[in-house]
Amino acid sequence: MNEQKSAFQKFRQKTYIIIYGTNTFAGKAFDLILLGVIFLSVLLTMMETVKSFESKYHDIRIVLEWGITIFFTIEYFLRIISINKPLKYIFSLYGIIDLIATLPMYLAQVFAGSGVLSIVRSLRLLRLFKILKHPQFTGQSKQLRDAMYASKGKILVFIYFVLISTVLIGSVMYVVEGRENGFTSIPTSIYWTIVTLTTVGYGDISPVTPLGQFLASLVMVLGYGVIAVPTGIVSAEIAKLGSNTTTTTTTLQKNPCADCGMEDHQENAKYCHNCGNNLLDD
Amino acid sequence: MNEQKSAFQKFRQKTYIIIYGTNTFAGKAFDLILLGVIFLSVLLTMMETVKSFESKYHDIRIVLEWGITIFFTIEYFLRIISINKPLKYIFSLYGIIDLIATLPMYLAQVFAGSGVLSIVRSLRLLRLFKILKHPQFTGQSKQLRDAMYASKGKILVFIYFVLISTVLIGSVMYVVEGRENGFTSIPTSIYWTIVTLTTVGYGDISPVTPLGQFLASLVMVLGYGVIAVPTGIVSAEIAKLGSNTTTTTTTLQKNPCADCGMEDHQENAKYCHNCGNNLLDD
Amino acid sequence: MNEQKSAFQKFRQKTYIIIYGTNTFAGKAFDLILLGVIFLSVLLTMMETVKSFESKYHDIRIVLEWGITIFFTIEYFLRIISINKPLKYIFSLYGIIDLIATLPMYLAQVFAGSGVLSIVRSLRLLRLFKILKHPQFTGQSKQLRDAMYASKGKILVFIYFVLISTVLIGSVMYVVEGRENGFTSIPTSIYWTIVTLTTVGYGDISPVTPLGQFLASLVMVLGYGVIAVPTGIVSAEIAKLGSNTTTTTTTLQKNPCADCGMEDHQENAKYCHNCGNNLLDD
Amino acid sequence: MNEQKSAFQKFRQKTYIIIYGTNTFAGKAFDLILLGVIFLSVLLTMMETVKSFESKYHDIRIVLEWGITIFFTIEYFLRIISINKPLKYIFSLYGIIDLIATLPMYLAQVFAGSGVLSIVRSLRLLRLFKILKHPQFTGQSKQLRDAMYASKGKILVFIYFVLISTVLIGSVMYVVEGRENGFTSIPTSIYWTIVTLTTVGYGDISPVTPLGQFLASLVMVLGYGVIAVPTGIVSAEIAKLGSNTTTTTTTLQKNPCADCGMEDHQENAKYCHNCGNNLLDD
Repeated sequence: MNEQKSAFQKFRQKTYIIIYGTNTFAGKAFDLILLGVIFLSVLLTMMETVKSFESKYHDIRIVLEWGITIFFTIEYFLRIISINKPLKYIFSLYGIIDLIATLPMYLAQVFAGSGVLSIVRSLRLLRLFKILKHPQFTGQSKQLRDAMYASKGKILVFIYFVLISTVLIGSVMYVVEGRENGFTSIPTSIYWTIVTLTTVGYGDISPVTPLGQFLASLVMVLGYGVIAVPTGIVSAEIAKLGSNTTTTTTTLQKNPCADCGMEDHQENAKYCHNCGNNLLDD
Repeated sequence: MNEQKSAFQKFRQKTYIIIYGTNTFAGKAFDLILLGVIFLSVLLTMMETVKSFESKYHDIRIVLEWGITIFFTIEYFLRIISINKPLKYIFSLYGIIDLIATLPMYLAQVFAGSGVLSIVRSLRLLRLFKILKHPQFTGQSKQLRDAMYASKGKILVFIYFVLISTVLIGSVMYVVEGRENGFTSIPTSIYWTIVTLTTVGYGDISPVTPLGQFLASLVMVLGYGVIAVPTGIVSAEIAKLGSNTTTTTTTLQKNPCADCGMEDHQENAKYCHNCGNNLLDD
Repeated sequence: MNEQKSAFQKFRQKTYIIIYGTNTFAGKAFDLILLGVIFLSVLLTMMETVKSFESKYHDIRIVLEWGITIFFTIEYFLRIISINKPLKYIFSLYGIIDLIATLPMYLAQVFAGSGVLSIVRSLRLLRLFKILKHPQFTGQSKQLRDAMYASKGKILVFIYFVLISTVLIGSVMYVVEGRENGFTSIPTSIYWTIVTLTTVGYGDISPVTPLGQFLASLVMVLGYGVIAVPTGIVSAEIAKLGSNTTTTTTTLQKNPCADCGMEDHQENAKYCHNCGNNLLDD
Repeated sequence: MNEQKSAFQKFRQKTYIIIYGTNTFAGKAFDLILLGVIFLSVLLTMMETVKSFESKYHDIRIVLEWGITIFFTIEYFLRIISINKPLKYIFSLYGIIDLIATLPMYLAQVFAGSGVLSIVRSLRLLRLFKILKHPQFTGQSKQLRDAMYASKGKILVFIYFVLISTVLIGSVMYVVEGRENGFTSIPTSIYWTIVTLTTVGYGDISPVTPLGQFLASLVMVLGYGVIAVPTGIVSAEIAKLGSNTTTTTTTLQKNPCADCGMEDHQENAKYCHNCGNNLLDD
C-alpha cells in the first residue's frame, strides 16, 4: 500500500516537472505541443465562422475539436493532481482560463448558440502570454512594461484630456453637421471625433458642410500636435530605461516550485519567490 | 444680532472649506459628488440626442435634469455667499462656466431649440480639468504642459509651413482632379489635403485620375517625413524635461485661500500665492 | 538737374528702406499691409472656385482683384526702382514670384481658362515664407531645418527602401486581387500600397479576397514597425540639436543692404553677408 | 595557344572589373546603365497592366522588352564567365535574381499567363538594394539596420502582444457586430482590428451598432497609447547609436575580389573580408 502510494507519488512528481516545468527536455517538449494545440484550437474557432470553410470541412473540424477538448481535459486533471495546492491553481487566473478552454464542446451539447462560445474559446489565447515569462523574453518585455508603467501618469493625464476634448468637439460637430449628415447623436459624434483624432478615419461618417469641414480640418491639424504627445512620452521613458539598464545573466534552478508552479528560481534560492514554499524540501 | 451674524459667519466658513477645499474629508466627498453630478449631466445631454433612448426615458431624464439644475443652482449661490470676494469668482472662467451650467433648463422654458443648448451644457465638462490641479496629477500635467510650451515655437513654425503647403497642394489638386472628381473647390481641396497629410484619410474625396493618384502618393510619401517632425519635437522636449526634473514633496495647508479659493499653499506660506491675501488673517 | 536727381535719390532711398526694410516703423507697417493683401488675394482665389460664393459676390471680387493687382504692380515697380541692382532682384526667386503674382488679371483679359491661373496665383503664398526670416522665428526654423538636413541621408535611404517595397507589394497585390477588385493595374496597386503604408487608408480601393486581406494585414503590421523609423530619425536629430544649441542675441543694423535687399546685418558688419556690398558706402 | 588564352584571360579580367567593380570609371558607367535598364524594365512591367497604355504602345513595349531581355542575358553570361568561382555566383541570391530577371520573355513564348510573370519581373528591383552598399550610403543604412536590429527583441514582443490582442478583439467584435454588419467571420474581424489598430482605417468594414462603436472607440484610444511603443523603441535606439557612432573615412582598393565580387577592401587588405581569397594574388 505504502509502496503503491510511493509509485503514485513518483508519477505525480514526474508529471509535475513535465507540465509545470520548462527547464527539462520533456517539459520543453510538452510546452511546444501545448502551444501547437492551443494555436490549432484558436484556428479552428476562427475557421468555424468562415462559411465556405465550414461547409466543406465541418466533420473534420468536429473530430479535431473533440481531440483538442479531450487533450485539454486530461491536461487540466493532470495539473490538479500533480500540484501540491490544487485549490490555489484552480482559482488562479490561468486555472480558470484552462477550465473554460475545456468547456465549449461539452456546453455545445447542452446549449445552442456558438456565437458567445467563440469569445470563450479565444480566451485560450491568453495562455500564450505565459511565453513572455520565458528567460529569453523576460528582459525585453520587462523593459517595455517598465516604460509603460513609468509613463502611466502622463498617459492617463493625456487620455483624460483627450476624452474631455472629444466630448466638447463631438457636441459642437453634432450641432454644426446635424442628423442628416450622419452625425445622428452626440455619442455618434464623439465616435467620429475619436476616429478622426486617432487618424483612423473610416469615412463612414465625414463632415459635409463647409463649416463642418473647416472645423474638422482644425481638429486634425491641432490634434496632430497633441497626438504626438504619447509617442514622445513613451520614447523618452524607453530612452531613459535603455541607458540605465544593465543585463545580468543568472543560472536558474531546473525544477519549478511544487506548490504554486512558479519557475526560474535562482541557483541559490531556498524559498519560492512567489509563495514562500521551501524549495529544498521537495 | 452680532451672535446671529457670527453663526452665519461660521456657516460661511464651513461651507467655504467644503466647497472650495479638497484637503478635508468633507471637501473631498463634496468634490467626488460634484464630479458624479457633472458626469451624469453630460451623460444626460448626450443621451438626449439618441432617439431610441429619448423616446423611452424622456420623463426620467427631465426629472434628473431638474434635480441636477437645482443642485448646480444651490452650489452656485453657496459658492458666491461663502467666498470673500464674490465678484472675483463670478467673473472668473470657472465662475462663468458654473453659471452657464445652471442655465439650460431655465432657458429651455423660455426659448426653443435644444441644439445650441447642447454645446452650452457640454461646457460643464471644462470643470473636470480642475482635477488636474490635484496634487497627484500636478507633477505629471505640469511636465506635459512644460513640454508643450517649450516646443511651442517649433510647432508654430511647423503648422505655418504645413498650412501654406496645404494651400499650394490643394490648388494643384483642384486643377488636376477637377470638380467632377469631388474636388469641387479649392477650400474643399485644402480639406482633402489636410485629411491626407494628417493620415486620417476618410475616403469621402480621393483622387481618381492617374496624375492625381501619382501626386497624392508623392504628398503622402514626402508628407510622411515632414509629419514625423512634431513627434520628434515633443519627444525631444519631454526627454529633456525628464532628465532635469526632480520631484519634491511639500506639506500643504489644509484650508484654501478665503479670497480667491486657491489651494495647496505650502505649510509655511503667509500669503496666498495667487491673490496675495493674508492667509493667517482668516 | 543735379538737385532733382538728388530728390529722386532721396525718394529711392526712402522707398528702399520701407519696402525692403523691416526694422523701421514704416518698414514694419508696409510688411504687415503687404501680408494682409497677399492673404486677401489668396482668399479671393480660393473663394472664386466656390460656386455659391462666386455667383453672389462675383462683381465685388473682380473689383478687389483689380485693386490687389494694381497694388502688386506698383509695389513691383517700386522694388525695381529703389534697389541698386534691379536685374539681380528681377531674376531672383522672389522677384519672379512677385512678377507672376501681378500677372493673372492682365492675362485673364487676353486668355480664357482660369484653372491654370489659380495655381499661378497661389504661388503668391510662397512670399509668406519670408516671415520665417524674421528674427523671432529664425532660431526655431533654423533648428528644424538643421534637424531635417542632418537626417537627410537616413530619410533618403528610408524612402528608397519604401519605394522598392512599394513596387514589390503592389505587384503581388495586383496578381492576388486582380482588376475586378479595384486593383486595375500595377501603378494603381502601388498607389494603394502607399495609401496603406502611410496609414492614410482612403478605402477607395481595399482588398476583398481572404488572401488579399491577409497580405494587407501583414503589410500593415510589419509596415508599422518600419514606419516608426522616420519619426525616430527626426526625434534623435532634434534631441541632439536641442542639447547643443545656445541661443545668442545680437543687435542688428536698421537698414537693409542697398544692393541685394538682405537684412539683419550685425551692428559691426561692414559688408553685406549675402552679396559682399560695402554697407558703410551707401 | 598560350597567348590566345592570355588574351581571353585579359578580356575576362577587364570584364570583371567593369561588371563587378564600381571604383573605376567604366565600372561606374556600367552600373548606371544597368540601373537605367532595370528601371526601364520595371516601368514596362508596370505599364503593361495599364490598359490604355498597353493598347496604344503594345508593339514598342515588346521591342523594348526583347532589348532588355537580350541585355540581361548577355550580362548574365559575362558575369558567369568573368568570375573565378561561377557556381558561387549562380547560386547566390543575386545570381538567382539575375537569372530570373532574364527569363520572363523566354517563358512567355512557351507558357501563357502574364499575371504570375509580373511578380517574377518585379523581383528585378531587389538588385537596386545593392546601391545601398555604395560607400556614400553605407554609413546611413548601416546605422538604420543596427537600430532595427537592436530593437528586434522589443519589436517582436510588441508584435506578439498586438497579434494576440488582435484575435481577442476580433472575436469580440464578430459577436457584437455580427455577419450582417460586415464582420462576416472572425478572420475578417481580425483584418478589421488590424486596419483599425494601425490607424489605416479603410472604412470597408466599420462598426454600426452603438456597442460596436463604443468598443471600437476604446480600441482606438487605448490602442493609440500602445501604438506609440514601436516609435519609442526605434527612436531610443537611433538616439543611442547616434551618440556612439564616429564616422571614419578609409581609402578603398580599386578592384573587387576576383572570387566573390565583394568590393570596398581597405587599402592595406591582403585577403577578401568576405571569402578569404588572397587579393594580392590576382
